[in-house]
Amino acid sequence: MHIDKLAIIGVGLIGGSLARALRRARACDQIIGFGRNRDHLKKAVELGVIDDFSTQLERVVKDADVIVLATPLKTTESLLREMRPLLKENVVLTDVGSAKTCVIEDAENALGELMPRFVPGHPIAGTEKSGVEASFAGLFEDHRVILTPLPGTAVDALQQVTAMWECVGAEVTHLDAEHHDQILAATSHLPHLLAYALVDCLAGMRDRDEIFEFAAGGFADFTRIASSHPEMWHDICFSNRQQLLAVFDHFNSRLQMIRQAIEQGDSETLLAIFTRAKQSRDRFTDNRKKIPNDVE
Amino acid sequence: MHIDKLAIIGVGLIGGSLARALRRARACDQIIGFGRNRDHLKKAVELGVIDDFSTQLERVVKDADVIVLATPLKTTESLLREMRPLLKENVVLTDVGSAKTCVIEDAENALGELMPRFVPGHPIAGTEKSGVEASFAGLFEDHRVILTPLPGTAVDALQQVTAMWECVGAEVTHLDAEHHDQILAATSHLPHLLAYALVDCLAGMRDRDEIFEFAAGGFADFTRIASSHPEMWHDICFSNRQQLLAVFDHFNSRLQMIRQAIEQGDSETLLAIFTRAKQSRDRFTDNRKKIPNDVE
Repeated sequence: MHIDKLAIIGVGLIGGSLARALRRARACDQIIGFGRNRDHLKKAVELGVIDDFSTQLERVVKDADVIVLATPLKTTESLLREMRPLLKENVVLTDVGSAKTCVIEDAENALGELMPRFVPGHPIAGTEKSGVEASFAGLFEDHRVILTPLPGTAVDALQQVTAMWECVGAEVTHLDAEHHDQILAATSHLPHLLAYALVDCLAGMRDRDEIFEFAAGGFADFTRIASSHPEMWHDICFSNRQQLLAVFDHFNSRLQMIRQAIEQGDSETLLAIFTRAKQSRDRFTDNRKKIPNDVE
Repeated sequence: MHIDKLAIIGVGLIGGSLARALRRARACDQIIGFGRNRDHLKKAVELGVIDDFSTQLERVVKDADVIVLATPLKTTESLLREMRPLLKENVVLTDVGSAKTCVIEDAENALGELMPRFVPGHPIAGTEKSGVEASFAGLFEDHRVILTPLPGTAVDALQQVTAMWECVGAEVTHLDAEHHDQILAATSHLPHLLAYALVDCLAGMRDRDEIFEFAAGGFADFTRIASSHPEMWHDICFSNRQQLLAVFDHFNSRLQMIRQAIEQGDSETLLAIFTRAKQSRDRFTDNRKKIPNDVE
């Protein structure tokens, strides 16, 4: 696996960690970052994450062999549209967005006949932290990367993106975009929403100071993801709105069932739900014990 | 701090960890365990957690100077009722239950004029694991223990229980029982309920195998508490029903507000909630960084 010139569009936690990991693997001749904020990009160069940067998209993408979009979801279409006339022939484009149906739609709108060069992707890795300072080379090791290629995706582009992720230690899997969005709505988007909802609810209560004072490790773990980047998660909720609302409603009916059981003293229902949940959770833990460094 | 004979009623995670910690501190001449299951109690002796045990309550409590109840909440009244005629004069009784109003009511019913000897308590510590095998001496170090004494509680009993917890490294605080129950409903009972609800909801979905396969660290942390002891949490939900339902409804209205914002494309509301939540969560993390070994 080798990339002559790699462009990272958005040098934050994910973009920065990918750059670090590829540098460590000596997989690129040059890694150039693009972003809106010069100070962040300078910091990324100082930290040795990227070789160079520009806040002008043209400078970053025009000679790039591989371009990785790692910016909030709502920027996908406009960025791709802007870079389309600047792209090198046979460029490979990919992204790291947490919702894939919307990215595909945006990419189709923006790229037109260049769409075969775009490989939609999503590394299932991250932390609740944001920004290049939080990036680290080991982030993707032994983590999944889900690619959601289309029937028309160019084989060489798919191979290049697959090789890039494998080179940083990830395990690449393919899923249909809609299926990806259903699964991620359930395991990631809904939990984030619940954690944000809980923290904001408690922060609005009269005795909030005591509430947070007496909260312990269970609360800390449960709400860790509520420290995630608000704008990014705002975008994800809207980008995956349909699947998120579907799983929300499914969850909500379970939640109201629990409320009713508690109110009505329905011991059997409550114990059955808790017991089933514990069994599923314990099974989940047993199956994933081997993954190190897994915080998102 | 010294206890001649300590009785631990229920030698599980909490009872076992307290016994280990007090032994390590050489604070007791003798620690005797009571439980229903001989095998568990034998295991506790083998592990060096307790000195001896009996499945007959009389043998365990009759000479005890301090008695710690560490059994599921619904057993409080019957156990106290059974031990009342057997107790030594000036015995000190305490418990570790996660809800306090109900414990006080049960204790008043069971103990009558001996009530001044009972100090209601709750160590804010634990893990999602259960049983004496999961117990460890450091569990309470730098953790809070909330005591909810009544106006009639005997000063010497309160001092003895305070000294016992301080001896194992905990920081003792006093709260009104109802206030304790409100705070714990918000920071502990509701999150457990949400984690159980989410895992059970996902486990019931058609593509549950893929859902759990692609779940990562964020999901793992969020749902860790769903591996907690189902019976114990069933008891807590019913024992603290009133406060739990109150905070549930408060949370639920916030949750439905979020759902509506997503459905209606109300970007401003959603971003405001996520941003406020992140700020509160980050502040919470900053304030508690110093606590080691804090998993519940």
